[in-house]
Amino acid sequence: MRAETISIGTELLLGEITDTNTPFLANQLSLLGIDLYYASSVGDNYERLMEVLRRAWQRSDIIITTGGLGPTQDDITRETIAGLVGEGLKVDPELKQNIVCFFAQRGIEMPVSNVKQATVIPSAQVIPNPYGTAPGWWVEKEGRIIIAMPGPPSEMEAMWQDEVFPRLQERTGAIILSRTIKTFGLTEAKVDELITPLSSSSNPTLATYAKLDGIQLRITAKAAKPEEAQGMISKTEAEVRAILGDCIWGVDDETQEGVVGQLLVARGLSLAVAETFTAGFLTNTLATAHDSQSYFKGGLVTTSDEAKVALGLNPQPAGAEVATAMAVLARRQFEASIGIGLDGFTEPAGDAVPYTVFIAIDSEQIKQHTVQSYSGRLYQMKRRAAYYALFDLMKLLRST
Amino acid sequence: MRAETISIGTELLLGEITDTNTPFLANQLSLLGIDLYYASSVGDNYERLMEVLRRAWQRSDIIITTGGLGPTQDDITRETIAGLVGEGLKVDPELKQNIVCFFAQRGIEMPVSNVKQATVIPSAQVIPNPYGTAPGWWVEKEGRIIIAMPGPPSEMEAMWQDEVFPRLQERTGAIILSRTIKTFGLTEAKVDELITPLSSSSNPTLATYAKLDGIQLRITAKAAKPEEAQGMISKTEAEVRAILGDCIWGVDDETQEGVVGQLLVARGLSLAVAETFTAGFLTNTLATAHDSQSYFKGGLVTTSDEAKVALGLNPQPAGAEVATAMAVLARRQFEASIGIGLDGFTEPAGDAVPYTVFIAIDSEQIKQHTVQSYSGRLYQMKRRAAYYALFDLMKLLRST
Repeated sequence: MRAETISIGTELLLGEITDTNTPFLANQLSLLGIDLYYASSVGDNYERLMEVLRRAWQRSDIIITTGGLGPTQDDITRETIAGLVGEGLKVDPELKQNIVCFFAQRGIEMPVSNVKQATVIPSAQVIPNPYGTAPGWWVEKEGRIIIAMPGPPSEMEAMWQDEVFPRLQERTGAIILSRTIKTFGLTEAKVDELITPLSSSSNPTLATYAKLDGIQLRITAKAAKPEEAQGMISKTEAEVRAILGDCIWGVDDETQEGVVGQLLVARGLSLAVAETFTAGFLTNTLATAHDSQSYFKGGLVTTSDEAKVALGLNPQPAGAEVATAMAVLARRQFEASIGIGLDGFTEPAGDAVPYTVFIAIDSEQIKQHTVQSYSGRLYQMKRRAAYYALFDLMKLLRST
Repeated sequence: MRAETISIGTELLLGEITDTNTPFLANQLSLLGIDLYYASSVGDNYERLMEVLRRAWQRSDIIITTGGLGPTQDDITRETIAGLVGEGLKVDPELKQNIVCFFAQRGIEMPVSNVKQATVIPSAQVIPNPYGTAPGWWVEKEGRIIIAMPGPPSEMEAMWQDEVFPRLQERTGAIILSRTIKTFGLTEAKVDELITPLSSSSNPTLATYAKLDGIQLRITAKAAKPEEAQGMISKTEAEVRAILGDCIWGVDDETQEGVVGQLLVARGLSLAVAETFTAGFLTNTLATAHDSQSYFKGGLVTTSDEAKVALGLNPQPAGAEVATAMAVLARRQFEASIGIGLDGFTEPAGDAVPYTVFIAIDSEQIKQHTVQSYSGRLYQMKRRAAYYALFDLMKLLRST
């Protein structure tokens, strides 16, 4: 089955709000194994919405609209669907009563304009909306389904979960599972090149995504039974692991900071960090990690040479020596078993310049430092430095 | 002129990432006075992308695509545009050389697949991409313009600002000016209520936006001449200032940390901070602020009670006393003229819980502390705490 989503509202096309309904529905449809081929946004305009709906009617089996179900003159989704399927709108007395009650419960008389929300066409089944006055529509005609839902994400998501998802699941019956393998230290092009032998498979499929914490691979399998889909994923995962080996650090929802945290907790170790130049991104990543209080002691962040002197550090030149002194300082000040020091420099000009970061790790047993050179936008590269440090520590912890 | 945007990438239709490019472009186009009538997303599929492009070619003057310019087989934007306009792709030797250099600067040999990014068609002018290997295309043919930009928002936005926006502005000639007034300490509903007398104007328009650093009001004026638009904006701004007074802290691109930095520099003062519970967001905000080295000395971040003890602090109960001790500690350790200490607590359960933060400011002349209670999602509320602290300091500096 082919689906298509249409987000309706002029505010979307003025950039005043970000459409979160489309990514939500996209994700949900993929769980159902329904292919989403097109997603569009269109303003509150009858002709243009009709054009988009007509096009969708020609090419898709399921059309899901969000928005345009309000009580004002701008809200034209009902009228346009009625026009598309050639049916007349009529007020449904029961629906009208529901809306009157919705207002009465809040001590308000129903504004006259809201009667519009009680209109239906013969092909439309009403989808209840417990969180607002705009009911949805489920229209079935000529082998196609149009599902019209309200625009506010809280109302739409509740309607989807309670009513629409179960009905669609009944129709599809398919099982789709996916698994994400997370790597660090390789470029996307390199990962693509290495997995070429696997990437032509159409089931399971293999897709790569570049993120700040590395390149991710998503394996997605379709099958009639869960065990079958799981078996396909396991087989491909084993093949991916054989190719990418040590570059893989996690799967699915795992984060580098989470994996490092687990390794530290398992070994009864704690961590403190000191950063110059990376603006506290490593500290922030660790401090916001789930349950990090049990292993993360704290961070010391500074950006100026003067402040480095105040901390007893030799400010120039940036390098392994400063990074090592900082790792020692962090470990001592916060009484942690492991200290990480991050120092670095960049050329003064431009936004996308070569960037060098020095990563030192200090504990009773370990004295290590590494150097990474890479480039990009300064802000992102500073965030990326945190992942170089976490990946270094992860490798060390796994090898000991 | 009618524009249309097309976001390309199967990951968008799987709900794996949220498309922030469309709202960005929608907003930018509205500044240019170009009507955006349709926005679509389509997967990495030649036939479907071709269908969407053909449709756009029929109904729009300007077609803006984002995504699908990468080096992998999935990336088909170039091929599809070439197919649409019936032209052949050829490698541009200069462009290829640029990409080879991009990799060489990073000490990597160019993967063979990246040569794809150096291909062009005769109607395409290349739009430089200083932040990545994917150059953009500006295609003009038969009275239509196709602008193809990379998908990663940082690359796309830079390309847009530096290259595409100026070229489009030249074409439109319309004068649209806007000014953003930034407030803190009022809810969006309160701001809306206060400015009701001004909000019915259709030129200039007045719109409110809720951000973490406060409620923003955007005044937008259209006119034939710049002076005329400027005059309309100045008049409305004066009216807004008369209503919102001291709650206004900045305009346009100003940030709270930037305004605080200017005040500190003008008075020859420096700042250091210490945070528990806010995970280093204040430190990070200050450390990433433009030119903050001249006034920001550093931050001390900790999350665990044990670490507070290691720093010589009394860990419990959280409150003004701990915050004050932290402000003093930060000031002393980093040898700064002003110290800010942030401490806080929240109820352990749930995601949207009441949250209390204690903000202490310490300098030779000033000893102050304030308490803020508010609620929301924990991650956002921790970030918001940084703005409470910056706003406190801003008010203090302005009054002295």
